[in-house]
Amino acid sequence: MSDNFSYTITAQKGDERAHCAVIKTPHGCIETPNFIFCATHGAIKGLAMEQLIATGAQFVLGNTYHLWLQPGPDVVEKHGGLQRFTGWNRPMLTDSGGFQIFSLGYGGVVDEIKGKKDRSARPKSLLKITEEGAFFRSYLDGSLCFLSPERSIQIQQKLGADFILPLDECTPFHMKKDATAASMQRSHRWEFRSLQQFYNNFNDRQRMYGIVQGGVYEDLRRESIDFVNQQPFFAQAIGGSLGGDKQQMYEVVDFTMRYLSKNRPTHLLGIGGLRDILEGVQSGVDTFDCVHPTRIARHGCALIAKPETDFAKEHINLKNGIYKEDLNPIDTECDCYTCRNFSRSYLHHLFKAKESTGGLLLTIHNARFMVRWMEKIRNAIQTGTWAEFYKAHCC
Amino acid sequence: MSDNFSYTITAQKGDERAHCAVIKTPHGCIETPNFIFCATHGAIKGLAMEQLIATGAQFVLGNTYHLWLQPGPDVVEKHGGLQRFTGWNRPMLTDSGGFQIFSLGYGGVVDEIKGKKDRSARPKSLLKITEEGAFFRSYLDGSLCFLSPERSIQIQQKLGADFILPLDECTPFHMKKDATAASMQRSHRWEFRSLQQFYNNFNDRQRMYGIVQGGVYEDLRRESIDFVNQQPFFAQAIGGSLGGDKQQMYEVVDFTMRYLSKNRPTHLLGIGGLRDILEGVQSGVDTFDCVHPTRIARHGCALIAKPETDFAKEHINLKNGIYKEDLNPIDTECDCYTCRNFSRSYLHHLFKAKESTGGLLLTIHNARFMVRWMEKIRNAIQTGTWAEFYKAHCC
Repeated sequence: MSDNFSYTITAQKGDERAHCAVIKTPHGCIETPNFIFCATHGAIKGLAMEQLIATGAQFVLGNTYHLWLQPGPDVVEKHGGLQRFTGWNRPMLTDSGGFQIFSLGYGGVVDEIKGKKDRSARPKSLLKITEEGAFFRSYLDGSLCFLSPERSIQIQQKLGADFILPLDECTPFHMKKDATAASMQRSHRWEFRSLQQFYNNFNDRQRMYGIVQGGVYEDLRRESIDFVNQQPFFAQAIGGSLGGDKQQMYEVVDFTMRYLSKNRPTHLLGIGGLRDILEGVQSGVDTFDCVHPTRIARHGCALIAKPETDFAKEHINLKNGIYKEDLNPIDTECDCYTCRNFSRSYLHHLFKAKESTGGLLLTIHNARFMVRWMEKIRNAIQTGTWAEFYKAHCC
Repeated sequence: MSDNFSYTITAQKGDERAHCAVIKTPHGCIETPNFIFCATHGAIKGLAMEQLIATGAQFVLGNTYHLWLQPGPDVVEKHGGLQRFTGWNRPMLTDSGGFQIFSLGYGGVVDEIKGKKDRSARPKSLLKITEEGAFFRSYLDGSLCFLSPERSIQIQQKLGADFILPLDECTPFHMKKDATAASMQRSHRWEFRSLQQFYNNFNDRQRMYGIVQGGVYEDLRRESIDFVNQQPFFAQAIGGSLGGDKQQMYEVVDFTMRYLSKNRPTHLLGIGGLRDILEGVQSGVDTFDCVHPTRIARHGCALIAKPETDFAKEHINLKNGIYKEDLNPIDTECDCYTCRNFSRSYLHHLFKAKESTGGLLLTIHNARFMVRWMEKIRNAIQTGTWAEFYKAHCC
């Protein structure tokens, strides 16, 4: 294999697991720890890619489930891949499509988190899971679809992102241990088939992540870690249920990180709270992703947590009437386009007037906020002050 | 008065009325002929101002009616005016608020144009017009509002745009001559009161346009032209009914331009079709405004008319299935961000996926298209080839 890809640790102090690294890809390098922004349909919602580039963001993901159904992998392949299609000529990752199918399908994962009890009102799009794969209905037109490990990889090979994920089974939180074990075994078989498909049609411009399952059970996690460590993945992601609350999540991640290979970049799937990121970095995680920063922006919320601030107050809601005449920028220390040019009062006005430019400007701010947050974390590690930085925020 | 403002004709050939000019303002210069982009609530819908600036646009208008009700003139004044509020630190104009009140109020002007017959279904927000002004209900909360010439100017003085408009009465197309005459006379009285209010609280960083009324009746237009020419306006706008079809509009504009002062910039209110602009320039108009280019962008339509193209086909609709796999940019000759980076296929995909980034990218293209269209017109005038340019498109 060529040296299109590499993973190099660039800063790490003593026996700390927190580290800085560089992930090299054919589309440029990613400095870690870093945050992956979500471009579900191949666009950051409400933004032009040039605006995300201007924030200093380095890494974007696209969702295979959405891109498969619309516009379809053949259209993207005709463009020469997702990067040329979307105007994001930088490192990119696609997921397997599994998470959306299972979470939409069970009608439960998301609802459960949000505390909604009445799942019956929601049509279940997931029809059947067999050893072969998952049968489901398209959310676009109700047509019958089938996703197998091989199909997921074929689609992702056409989408052409730098990094791809194997299909795994995404199960709800409240699953008993034996069911979690059976699901994990199936995920391992699916990951193995994904790897086979990947190497059967190998392209030196892509690499695959493995995914660790096992829920909250340490012996299952160990078994899954061993599987991932032994397979020829370039990188690894922590998936599956991470527990019922934040503290349990931190423990599951920390436990998992103890045994996962240190020679591969590690991604924590779907997690990206400010505190969560600190805990993940402390355990040795390289990258994080979450729709939270861009989603809350569209609802009027701007990230503002400062080093000295409590995480309970991560953001302010610009729709609040107290900002009607507030001439200050969101954050006087922020150097984003929005903070350099606009007052809280103007942003408040845009949301009151239902102008989508408000969501756009907050998305720029929140993206730049996340970029600066990751810069601060890398800076602490590089200057040997990570332990103090972590303690100041998390203890 | 200082030389904060000036109007200088820079190119004009023989006895042609088409000309290039420079309008100087405290926020920079406008080269004419030019197009004014609509930032109704103080934002170009779906865009950041930096993106409009990048297209080369020079002139933006805000709507007094909308800005008065939300966020209110006091909030804008606290920021130091609309330019600092909106991040558009360039020449800007506000209208009087009258057009929205009358057109929303009659429930007729817009509906009539669109051929909707059933006006009764629409609540009329305009309650009463007296010599003093117009009473109406806020579209936001139904509260009782009153707009007089003095009030309109007071609001516009707080908004602080470079150019402001006097309150005039905007009447529907199908108005008899005697009613048009009476309405015109009232508009003159209101314009006179607007001027008085303007000079009573004069600020050397603002100038006022006069507005010519008179409908389609030549003797009334002459009377209104005389009024405007005699009053101390800096500039002049052509308002009122311009007729029932395009040809009549071109004739009314041409007739009006024969007699209006040549020493002042002239704006044609609310008109901005590609052909309309050519006819206006031919008659000597300096500036145009219209929501059309930015509005159709949000509905998937991209301006594409080329010099050799029929105006009947001014745009293409990217939502059309024929663009699903079209790898070309909207226009290979266009240098906008969208055309340099994205295919028609990608834009089609964004609209199919209901991603507002699609509207954003088309707004950039259409704005740049209008900027280039005006550049071509100025170039033809500057190189002494306007007559040929006009003939090639309009004859």
